[in-house]
Amino acid sequence: MSDLERTVLERIERARRRKPALADERVTMAHGAGGKATHTLVSALFLEAFRNPLLERMEDQAVFAVNGSRLAITTDSFVVSPLFFPGGSIGDLAVNGSVNDLSVAGARPLYLTAGFILEEGFPTADLRRIVQAMSAAAGAAGVSIAAGDTKVVERGKADGCFINTAAVGVIERDVCLGAASIRPGDAVLVSGPIGDHGVTIMLARGELDLDSALVSDTAPLCGLVDCLLDAAPVRAMRDPTRGGVATVLNEMAAAAGVAIAVDEAAVPVRAEVRGACEILGIDPLYAACEGRLVAVVPGKAAEAALGAMRGHPLGAGAAIIGEVRGDPPGLVLLKTQFGGTRIADMLVGDPLPRIC
Amino acid sequence: MSDLERTVLERIERARRRKPALADERVTMAHGAGGKATHTLVSALFLEAFRNPLLERMEDQAVFAVNGSRLAITTDSFVVSPLFFPGGSIGDLAVNGSVNDLSVAGARPLYLTAGFILEEGFPTADLRRIVQAMSAAAGAAGVSIAAGDTKVVERGKADGCFINTAAVGVIERDVCLGAASIRPGDAVLVSGPIGDHGVTIMLARGELDLDSALVSDTAPLCGLVDCLLDAAPVRAMRDPTRGGVATVLNEMAAAAGVAIAVDEAAVPVRAEVRGACEILGIDPLYAACEGRLVAVVPGKAAEAALGAMRGHPLGAGAAIIGEVRGDPPGLVLLKTQFGGTRIADMLVGDPLPRIC
Repeated sequence: MSDLERTVLERIERARRRKPALADERVTMAHGAGGKATHTLVSALFLEAFRNPLLERMEDQAVFAVNGSRLAITTDSFVVSPLFFPGGSIGDLAVNGSVNDLSVAGARPLYLTAGFILEEGFPTADLRRIVQAMSAAAGAAGVSIAAGDTKVVERGKADGCFINTAAVGVIERDVCLGAASIRPGDAVLVSGPIGDHGVTIMLARGELDLDSALVSDTAPLCGLVDCLLDAAPVRAMRDPTRGGVATVLNEMAAAAGVAIAVDEAAVPVRAEVRGACEILGIDPLYAACEGRLVAVVPGKAAEAALGAMRGHPLGAGAAIIGEVRGDPPGLVLLKTQFGGTRIADMLVGDPLPRIC
Repeated sequence: MSDLERTVLERIERARRRKPALADERVTMAHGAGGKATHTLVSALFLEAFRNPLLERMEDQAVFAVNGSRLAITTDSFVVSPLFFPGGSIGDLAVNGSVNDLSVAGARPLYLTAGFILEEGFPTADLRRIVQAMSAAAGAAGVSIAAGDTKVVERGKADGCFINTAAVGVIERDVCLGAASIRPGDAVLVSGPIGDHGVTIMLARGELDLDSALVSDTAPLCGLVDCLLDAAPVRAMRDPTRGGVATVLNEMAAAAGVAIAVDEAAVPVRAEVRGACEILGIDPLYAACEGRLVAVVPGKAAEAALGAMRGHPLGAGAAIIGEVRGDPPGLVLLKTQFGGTRIADMLVGDPLPRIC
């Protein structure tokens, strides 16, 4: 890296470390996209008001102890449009989303809650399909939906069906996973091709006039995580939903104060996803997955982790995509397929609205 | 009771015990009102699909054990309109609602999750007010907001701000509360005047041209519940939100297979609430509270329970309002102020939409 490059990177890094302020007077779609604007909203508003050690970890779940048992809770709301798409529905997403947010903390998901906000006039047949999908997804993940709530708002005051799920799980392994544990020399893996879900949703909206056999990757990650944790001393895991793999890596790099160098050629992307992303003008690294895992493991455990993932049906397409470096802290560097290096920042704006 | 009356009651009772079927092709406002249509939706759709022992209890929270610790979880979505009203905001409701659903199971609330669904264009200043109200309410209830999620939908696809909260708590007392424990001879109490919240919301909408000093009763019930549990061997508690006291009593009567006889004259109702309810054409027994408790205790513990409630600021207006009888099972009988007796069924329709 040249001195000039280093200076540029240092300036970017300083800018990133400034305490974010919420300058917007109104909420924009970008505040819900999971990228930079979401982070500003969360840091400047929610974290300021709710400040407590659990929330400050800024992970996808909170871990706490009750009488010596380690538990984890998480929540996610789902506003995906359309409600039904190739490979799944809002019901699958709502269950798998919360299951996965617990799984990546090494927690075994136990119970889910489900809160429905329905628009007056929503077809009960559609609701039944959604609920049956939730039931099947819960069965597949080994969790029970133990409590629920239903609200209805007037026609035109919602968009059919929104679902919130929260989940509670128990951490039975002696692990303490989190981005803060990541160290230089670690390896970065993904569990399979990225962006399938995000692109499937865009195609389902008919905005691109493309025929495709692509289906959402929505799936519960608990089984894959179990295999991985049996095989390797994992540092941290995340499921790259909104904002995609690039945003998750940025969160990890910032939390650990490390650089993450990704080899673009090593990142598995289906040809159809790559093609659709080109037409949409987005980078697959920012397209959402709903059943993929980003895992960071010590470098010497990388092959064992890869083998364990590949041994599970959901990890058949797993790959080592990069490594953790000490410098420059907080940045994700992408070695492009043309031999250059560029910074892969967090998602800016909302190129793929309401994909979950 | 005459033979004719008994025959009528038995027929009603048989009709009530029939397995509900969801005949509606579309969701109506009544499905979210917390009354009869909500129960049909929950029984015929959610319970059928998600069937498990925790959900089948049909309480406002699920109780489960992890390594010998008894925990409870609950969830509620909030779609109240307007978002700000005398005595509180959607932020207070969102925290107190989930805190109270745990409290009535004898659980000490520990952690909350918060899921926001925001409409594009929603003022960030309003969001800040809501979040600050949540923070203050969480502080008052002694809970931490430990995990969250934010989604944004396009203008016109939501109504400003919807919030879901879920809460997890621990049951440290040796109690097993629930409507199934209710027995003939038990006494029924409420912790204060009913319907303040529901009527406050209706007045805040300006639909009635009334000036009033009425404020919402939104409050965390955990402290009051502690006092009550210290003083009496409580059978069951509920917070009468949507559907009001009458709906909660119906749920209790149905779950326990008992009759509940309520003395209308004994039910505390503020003059302003009574007046507004008359204009609205609704019975205060169906108007929502957000910081009141219905408690059932053994008859001989009634005075002790009443004294304990009255000793707490939130229970100053507590009253014994009725008693549990063996017959006719599943019904709530109201001794009216004119000397007659009528059946107080569950809420039908949605006279007070979106009050929480």
